[in-house]
Amino acid sequence: MNKTSSISEYISASAETVEAALVSSLPAAWHIPLPLRESMNYSLMAGGKRLRPIFVLAAAEALGGSTEAALPVACAIEMVHTYSLIHDDLPAMDNDDYRRGKLTNHKVYGEAMAILAGDALLTHAFYSITQAHKVHGVPAERVLAITEELSAYAGARGMVGGQAADMLGEQGLTKLEELEYIHTHKTSDLIVFSLRAGGHLAGATDMQFAALSEFGHAIGLAFQIQDDILDIIGDEQKLGKPVKSDEKQMKVTYPYFIGMEASEQKIKELTEQGKNALIQAKLHNPERLLQLADYLMRRDH
Amino acid sequence: MNKTSSISEYISASAETVEAALVSSLPAAWHIPLPLRESMNYSLMAGGKRLRPIFVLAAAEALGGSTEAALPVACAIEMVHTYSLIHDDLPAMDNDDYRRGKLTNHKVYGEAMAILAGDALLTHAFYSITQAHKVHGVPAERVLAITEELSAYAGARGMVGGQAADMLGEQGLTKLEELEYIHTHKTSDLIVFSLRAGGHLAGATDMQFAALSEFGHAIGLAFQIQDDILDIIGDEQKLGKPVKSDEKQMKVTYPYFIGMEASEQKIKELTEQGKNALIQAKLHNPERLLQLADYLMRRDH
Repeated sequence: MNKTSSISEYISASAETVEAALVSSLPAAWHIPLPLRESMNYSLMAGGKRLRPIFVLAAAEALGGSTEAALPVACAIEMVHTYSLIHDDLPAMDNDDYRRGKLTNHKVYGEAMAILAGDALLTHAFYSITQAHKVHGVPAERVLAITEELSAYAGARGMVGGQAADMLGEQGLTKLEELEYIHTHKTSDLIVFSLRAGGHLAGATDMQFAALSEFGHAIGLAFQIQDDILDIIGDEQKLGKPVKSDEKQMKVTYPYFIGMEASEQKIKELTEQGKNALIQAKLHNPERLLQLADYLMRRDH
Repeated sequence: MNKTSSISEYISASAETVEAALVSSLPAAWHIPLPLRESMNYSLMAGGKRLRPIFVLAAAEALGGSTEAALPVACAIEMVHTYSLIHDDLPAMDNDDYRRGKLTNHKVYGEAMAILAGDALLTHAFYSITQAHKVHGVPAERVLAITEELSAYAGARGMVGGQAADMLGEQGLTKLEELEYIHTHKTSDLIVFSLRAGGHLAGATDMQFAALSEFGHAIGLAFQIQDDILDIIGDEQKLGKPVKSDEKQMKVTYPYFIGMEASEQKIKELTEQGKNALIQAKLHNPERLLQLADYLMRRDH
């Protein structure tokens, strides 16, 4: 990718690279019951921004590492994100029939197959990571460190813990801190992982890891607050009236606690804070990461 | 463990060692939402034979390896086995209210938390494996090979594939080959993994890996046929009449296809075949593995 291309061009090109790798991530020669294979591929190839894998590639690049060797890890994080969406959509969880305009996995393949497709994608993510060593020769020590961090950021202390807190909080959150806990673990943790994984692939220093973590945490929280805002705007457009006027439609979101204007301000502050952390760490080539932060702050979907 | 102790003493002592390690596998200092932590521990500590972790320890021992360094991997395979039971018991899958005389996970913690506890245990298994390197100094290359094999044997090509085939076959299996596919992947695959993981920890040769795989496959299938037989006997005792007289109670099992007597004969043949493969590989100290094979063949529960 040309260094002078726009950030949207960079995102499209990176997403295409990731999608091509995802298509071939489940070899046709493997003997997998067909409905399971189809169910896995249905959600894996259902679109989306491919934000997390792009962060893996951009972080590796920022540190002067190879994006090709980073691809198996980029695919892994998208598999983990996809499995979490499949399980979150289940009737016992958020009970959603549609995602990104398409039927959710269990509406197409049934609940049993959706549970199993999620389980298989999570398991396959760890396989994919090992290929960074086996196929691309990344040192085993580094790949093992990535494996350990994925299990931490995606597990009970991380993403799954965030989803559990979200389920438990459905009776009503009373504090902003509770919502921040959920946002941090459901959203920021996988973004922090993605950035740090790029760091491991390229051999980051402790100081660089700290900057990547701070950037990821800030950008992840900003991303989720922006999601909260876009949800409300979307609902308003659907309802044809301000959501504020109908408290029953009001989800417990960041704006619920501090209002729309302060939420927008918070997004700007977090983005600046994240970018500053990165700038101070003097990475080899941080431009794309900085551009991604600005791009996410300005997105409208 | 004294070499002259009986196999039941060996099993009890090994199970105790594994359970002590499992108890401390989720550090109290980790911030995990309490119901999620409780749900994970409820199923992890709900008993069971601890067969798979014992196979990890016994295989490492058979090749002259350290059983202490094998413990994180032994815990990992029990976490994977436990997650698979939690998800299999869900209403959308086998819909079981009891397991080993205790309420199933979702009956105690609800479906959402049971799904998440399963997800978290699967994720945590991969963390546990990394500790063989980090805490016990097993070379990163070997630990990465174990990670890759766990994702293969437990994933879409392995255990999850077997469970998917089982779900899809509920309309009625028509061939013994279909049942063998399910048994192989639902049961043998994790046993083969456990034995090979012991091999990786101790630095097995290709010939030794082949013998461990053949032993595991044969013993795993024998174990599952024995389970089929014990299920039928158990049902007969509960019903107070031979299950054969009530076709509706007759599950599609090995005896369903070839009868009780031929099934018992098959168990003996598989056990002999597995033991012979192991004996010919001339391991350092195969006694416990050979004794385990005989023990499993003779078990009545």
